[in-house]
Amino acid sequence: MSKIRIGMIGGGPGAFIGGVHRIALNMDGDFDLVAGAFSSSPEKSAQTGQELGLDPARVYGSWAEMAEAEAALPEDVRVQAVSIVTPNHVHHGPTVEFLKRGFHVICDKPLTVNSALAQEMLQATVDADCVFALTHNYTGYPMIREARELVRSGGIGKVLKVYAEYLQGWLVDPLEETGQKQADWRTDPARSGPGGALGDIGTHAFNLLEHVSGLKVQRVLAERRSYVPTRQVDDDTMALLEMENGATGTLCASQVCAGMENALRLRIYGSEGGIEWDQEHPNDLRVRWKDKPSEIRRTGNGYLGEHAQSLGRIPAGHPEGYLEGFANIYRAFARAIRGEETALEDPYPTAVDGVRGVQFIETVIQSAEQQAWLEMPQ
Amino acid sequence: MSKIRIGMIGGGPGAFIGGVHRIALNMDGDFDLVAGAFSSSPEKSAQTGQELGLDPARVYGSWAEMAEAEAALPEDVRVQAVSIVTPNHVHHGPTVEFLKRGFHVICDKPLTVNSALAQEMLQATVDADCVFALTHNYTGYPMIREARELVRSGGIGKVLKVYAEYLQGWLVDPLEETGQKQADWRTDPARSGPGGALGDIGTHAFNLLEHVSGLKVQRVLAERRSYVPTRQVDDDTMALLEMENGATGTLCASQVCAGMENALRLRIYGSEGGIEWDQEHPNDLRVRWKDKPSEIRRTGNGYLGEHAQSLGRIPAGHPEGYLEGFANIYRAFARAIRGEETALEDPYPTAVDGVRGVQFIETVIQSAEQQAWLEMPQ
Amino acid sequence: MSKIRIGMIGGGPGAFIGGVHRIALNMDGDFDLVAGAFSSSPEKSAQTGQELGLDPARVYGSWAEMAEAEAALPEDVRVQAVSIVTPNHVHHGPTVEFLKRGFHVICDKPLTVNSALAQEMLQATVDADCVFALTHNYTGYPMIREARELVRSGGIGKVLKVYAEYLQGWLVDPLEETGQKQADWRTDPARSGPGGALGDIGTHAFNLLEHVSGLKVQRVLAERRSYVPTRQVDDDTMALLEMENGATGTLCASQVCAGMENALRLRIYGSEGGIEWDQEHPNDLRVRWKDKPSEIRRTGNGYLGEHAQSLGRIPAGHPEGYLEGFANIYRAFARAIRGEETALEDPYPTAVDGVRGVQFIETVIQSAEQQAWLEMPQ
Amino acid sequence: MSKIRIGMIGGGPGAFIGGVHRIALNMDGDFDLVAGAFSSSPEKSAQTGQELGLDPARVYGSWAEMAEAEAALPEDVRVQAVSIVTPNHVHHGPTVEFLKRGFHVICDKPLTVNSALAQEMLQATVDADCVFALTHNYTGYPMIREARELVRSGGIGKVLKVYAEYLQGWLVDPLEETGQKQADWRTDPARSGPGGALGDIGTHAFNLLEHVSGLKVQRVLAERRSYVPTRQVDDDTMALLEMENGATGTLCASQVCAGMENALRLRIYGSEGGIEWDQEHPNDLRVRWKDKPSEIRRTGNGYLGEHAQSLGRIPAGHPEGYLEGFANIYRAFARAIRGEETALEDPYPTAVDGVRGVQFIETVIQSAEQQAWLEMPQ
Repeated sequence: MSKIRIGMIGGGPGAFIGGVHRIALNMDGDFDLVAGAFSSSPEKSAQTGQELGLDPARVYGSWAEMAEAEAALPEDVRVQAVSIVTPNHVHHGPTVEFLKRGFHVICDKPLTVNSALAQEMLQATVDADCVFALTHNYTGYPMIREARELVRSGGIGKVLKVYAEYLQGWLVDPLEETGQKQADWRTDPARSGPGGALGDIGTHAFNLLEHVSGLKVQRVLAERRSYVPTRQVDDDTMALLEMENGATGTLCASQVCAGMENALRLRIYGSEGGIEWDQEHPNDLRVRWKDKPSEIRRTGNGYLGEHAQSLGRIPAGHPEGYLEGFANIYRAFARAIRGEETALEDPYPTAVDGVRGVQFIETVIQSAEQQAWLEMPQ
Repeated sequence: MSKIRIGMIGGGPGAFIGGVHRIALNMDGDFDLVAGAFSSSPEKSAQTGQELGLDPARVYGSWAEMAEAEAALPEDVRVQAVSIVTPNHVHHGPTVEFLKRGFHVICDKPLTVNSALAQEMLQATVDADCVFALTHNYTGYPMIREARELVRSGGIGKVLKVYAEYLQGWLVDPLEETGQKQADWRTDPARSGPGGALGDIGTHAFNLLEHVSGLKVQRVLAERRSYVPTRQVDDDTMALLEMENGATGTLCASQVCAGMENALRLRIYGSEGGIEWDQEHPNDLRVRWKDKPSEIRRTGNGYLGEHAQSLGRIPAGHPEGYLEGFANIYRAFARAIRGEETALEDPYPTAVDGVRGVQFIETVIQSAEQQAWLEMPQ
Repeated sequence: MSKIRIGMIGGGPGAFIGGVHRIALNMDGDFDLVAGAFSSSPEKSAQTGQELGLDPARVYGSWAEMAEAEAALPEDVRVQAVSIVTPNHVHHGPTVEFLKRGFHVICDKPLTVNSALAQEMLQATVDADCVFALTHNYTGYPMIREARELVRSGGIGKVLKVYAEYLQGWLVDPLEETGQKQADWRTDPARSGPGGALGDIGTHAFNLLEHVSGLKVQRVLAERRSYVPTRQVDDDTMALLEMENGATGTLCASQVCAGMENALRLRIYGSEGGIEWDQEHPNDLRVRWKDKPSEIRRTGNGYLGEHAQSLGRIPAGHPEGYLEGFANIYRAFARAIRGEETALEDPYPTAVDGVRGVQFIETVIQSAEQQAWLEMPQ
Repeated sequence: MSKIRIGMIGGGPGAFIGGVHRIALNMDGDFDLVAGAFSSSPEKSAQTGQELGLDPARVYGSWAEMAEAEAALPEDVRVQAVSIVTPNHVHHGPTVEFLKRGFHVICDKPLTVNSALAQEMLQATVDADCVFALTHNYTGYPMIREARELVRSGGIGKVLKVYAEYLQGWLVDPLEETGQKQADWRTDPARSGPGGALGDIGTHAFNLLEHVSGLKVQRVLAERRSYVPTRQVDDDTMALLEMENGATGTLCASQVCAGMENALRLRIYGSEGGIEWDQEHPNDLRVRWKDKPSEIRRTGNGYLGEHAQSLGRIPAGHPEGYLEGFANIYRAFARAIRGEETALEDPYPTAVDGVRGVQFIETVIQSAEQQAWLEMPQ
């Protein structure tokens, strides 16, 4: 089984998520990274290409140049897929362009910066005969799949309450003023879109909530703040939610909870029991029951559902982490490209999920402005 | 040091909180329970009196009878204080009556069923030359005091985010229809007041939040539900909050989270760090810091502040629980009756706290009706 | 139901365990503390008596004086029981004396300082028509009872491995040189007996292991150290164990693990699953299964066995702690005195347990001297 | 920077650790797997080679054939390093052979099956001008490095107590009788060597203990059992230890603790504090202090020592797991091959560690036979 040739857009010097994508695509040996436009600065792009040992001829100064040049290469040489790991405002352009040229695309989240562009991207994925995957990577965790199977199969009864939160502390000070690259673009609405914490992490919590519950968010009442006065985007968002089945709950996304690292947590309670999951200890899924002791289900065990089992790589007790979850999206992407069958339902997030995330951002922003319950597009 | 003679109103057969109060008043040997009107049924009152080994002559069929009879006894025989552990609608009557007659009163929460009655009770405590304590018992936990000292002294910087929640699951089914005593009165608005989960447990979360943060809730936007269709009070309440200093957050109180026991949790994050506390593991206080490892502060250690230290009874590592926290309110009540000095600020909750709790219930109810942010009375 | 009149031997100024016993006997209102010989110093004894509001005529300067004087009082006035909370070397004298005179006795552990005295005490309990209880208080925790029922009923299969440990850090420095009362007598072999950490806390771990497993320790290979050079007793003991059924394991007791508070932990694994319990979080019992998710069983739930349920006082989620577990021994003692029936098997530890604890101390000491596996008396 | 060409010995169909090594070598893009002798069955070897997309000409039926053939290839084509992931009895042969031919070698643990062979391997690493690394992979965890820096720098004072354990449950039944590949060779002394649980997991605990404490085990008193009667190797080992500085403790390795997954845990206590680490939650390091609250240090934070920081790949709160720890050994191996500088002391385990592990196995076996304290070779 030969490797899939892949190129990368973004991920140059100082990037965080580019490195993550490279590890994720390396992990299972499914891909060979052979080309890249790592930065809008040709020098920086070349530097990263060199560090990665790439052929300099296939390291480009822009994604447009790369699209054209790769398409011109022989079919068994040119990349088959591209990984887009740029700031949010540079998701739409390369996605549409590469899909149009027949390349498979895997793109970081959120899909893009507004609904109109999101719909164009969705249409592009429909029109193209290619695979498009969105790295809502947290869906790649085995215990998230276990929770999903349990909740969607009615295992905890009718869902009544949902609590999703994603709390970080790294932006409690105006880090963007120091020039730190991650803070810089994430707090610039021109690059990140109108949502700050909302877009960066709130969309993860939203996506995970719908993914696991199998329920759509129907109505939202939200509040947004910038606790750092000079900041141009929200660094804190909180919302009351109503789900399509009448369940209610909260969603909180904050980057000013000093001391919090990356606390993405999901809790869903139904008429018979509930599930609790914490991304910082991702191999434990607590399942609560109305009349029985809680259970701790753990990655890698034979008692798990087939979906959760299919996402593990190593035996129980050998902790799998963020990179493995991320790599699961890449593995599913590879399988889809190869046309392999999989028992896994919704094996990777798609543009449909991406559109929904952008709609969530927009609905929350409007709700906060109007201080009113608003309906999500359904 | 002789014991304080105390009587009890409520706490007859099938009661939960009456038994808790009796253990709490027994624990430190400060009180001698010598009289009671344990039930509005004279037979049941007598039965409880007998089980407790009381003189039958001092077991009464009503609190009114008890107030009159005890007042008529010689000063060194009659009770000095009463403990009121009846359903919420029977807090106001005996409190006012006993205070008026010069008895000290300790009363279960919430103070009463509406603001007008609450104000009368507050006035009664002002007019009387007696001690009035309200058993917002969770303030009696040592680590809550530690958190309070830390937060109020600025230890975690400026408070930015607050998350209070109190989740239970015991009312996910219509338990009241089985005649279960606890469910019965708590879901009857005539006895519990207009708030269900809101009054029963939401007020605890609210009280703890203001107690620890030292900040008043200024605005509320809330939502209430009854997930059991036949239920006449809310069994779920959630609210967005804004504190007087601009901090924001959420408060969730639910009794339909199947599998949850008694999950009262408080998290407060400031510009330098945060605190996290979970009532089910009350001897651990997690303190997070912006640039340093988290700490786990634990009951009974010499490194704690003087307030937290004064509330422990046993060395570190010997877990103290709910009953000890409850007993701390009784111990403070006893000290106040005896006029002993204490280093502890706000050693027990008072009618002022009680009024505030009732106002919170009313503001939340109105906000949920109007689907709008409302100001709390300040 | 009238209260049982009880007296106390020991528990004067500066004592720790005396205060614990007083809270434990107060908690359920079963006892009335009416007399005491709180110290071998009559002044100190009087001081404690006064603080407790006792009749000065019934506060004695020695246990011998108390035994004689109380016995001379009218039957309905004199104490019915005594609580012995003195250092270990003063357990034997008052126990034998009070039992002989027809008083019920509850005594702190370890039973006494050597096997010969232990056998005499055991004989005294046999000869007397009185109740004798030993406060191996950790057996009073509800979840210990749950573990016991599960393990003894074969719920985890054949027991294969046992790990008991009791780690503290408070004696890592020569605290006894500061005159600290607790450290002082515990490190003095004349008062504590030959075992230091071994007797003080190792016997708790040993008792709990046999209590929960239902298996006797058969062979021991041990090592003892004094990490504080000037200390006259061990401050650290560790042992390999073989149980009567062939299971093996370890028992570690240390008072020099800096930073450890009171970490008494028990783990037992069988052919089908295992149990894990930590005294510092006593309301959680983790039950592991060979082919199923772990369970977290928690105090106060309806799914627990009847024994565990009978030891709780409050609903699930309201943490019960060390004092409640201790009070469970006193409550069982009260019931035995009153001749009440109980469904609870082995409702409180007895002199038989006490003898076994002393034999464990002696066997460990000999094994450590001989550096050899030794048989425990069976 | 071009990739290092690597080959693999072992890791054919049904292997566990071969897959782990492949992920680990892929993760950072340092290696290109270009050859292999994946099984002693040429068919199985070919099958694995095909699955991995290797050139069939470089997939061999034996390591000996591979050594000869690869050595005959041009320098810029042949492998530069080999990864040996065979059962223990096939570590010595290929290690010596490939080293002799000038290939770098990374080999799974334990080094080999007896001390004589271990010394030969050590000598081979000395004689060769090549890098030899042993995958005691748990040393690759960032928080293990943090613990090591803290302990070795005297941060917790003088080390007094050490507790190492590695508990699993997967061999509680005679799994080897089902033909399960992992159980099969691990319980066969001809392939695994004389130690069962002792060699398979006990050596990991031993290695980690010496690695973190910086202290050598000096004396051992051990006990070994086979709880599955038909089993030819121990499935349970426990030992009392004395370290070179006089600290004492225990080491337990068991594969019959039903319900345990992969519980490798290390605790070390000194005169000022202690460290506690659990492989199943590897990103948390609990640091206890004599007079201060415990700390939770976490992977990826700026407050960590430089060693721990250098081993993380992603920001704090993004859990890193077993595979990342493993990959850290490969990354260090790659750096050593390339001659890159590293600030990391002892960046990977070597044959010296391997010899010590084999000596530990042998000393434990002898001690258990003689039931006596024995000295470890120093």
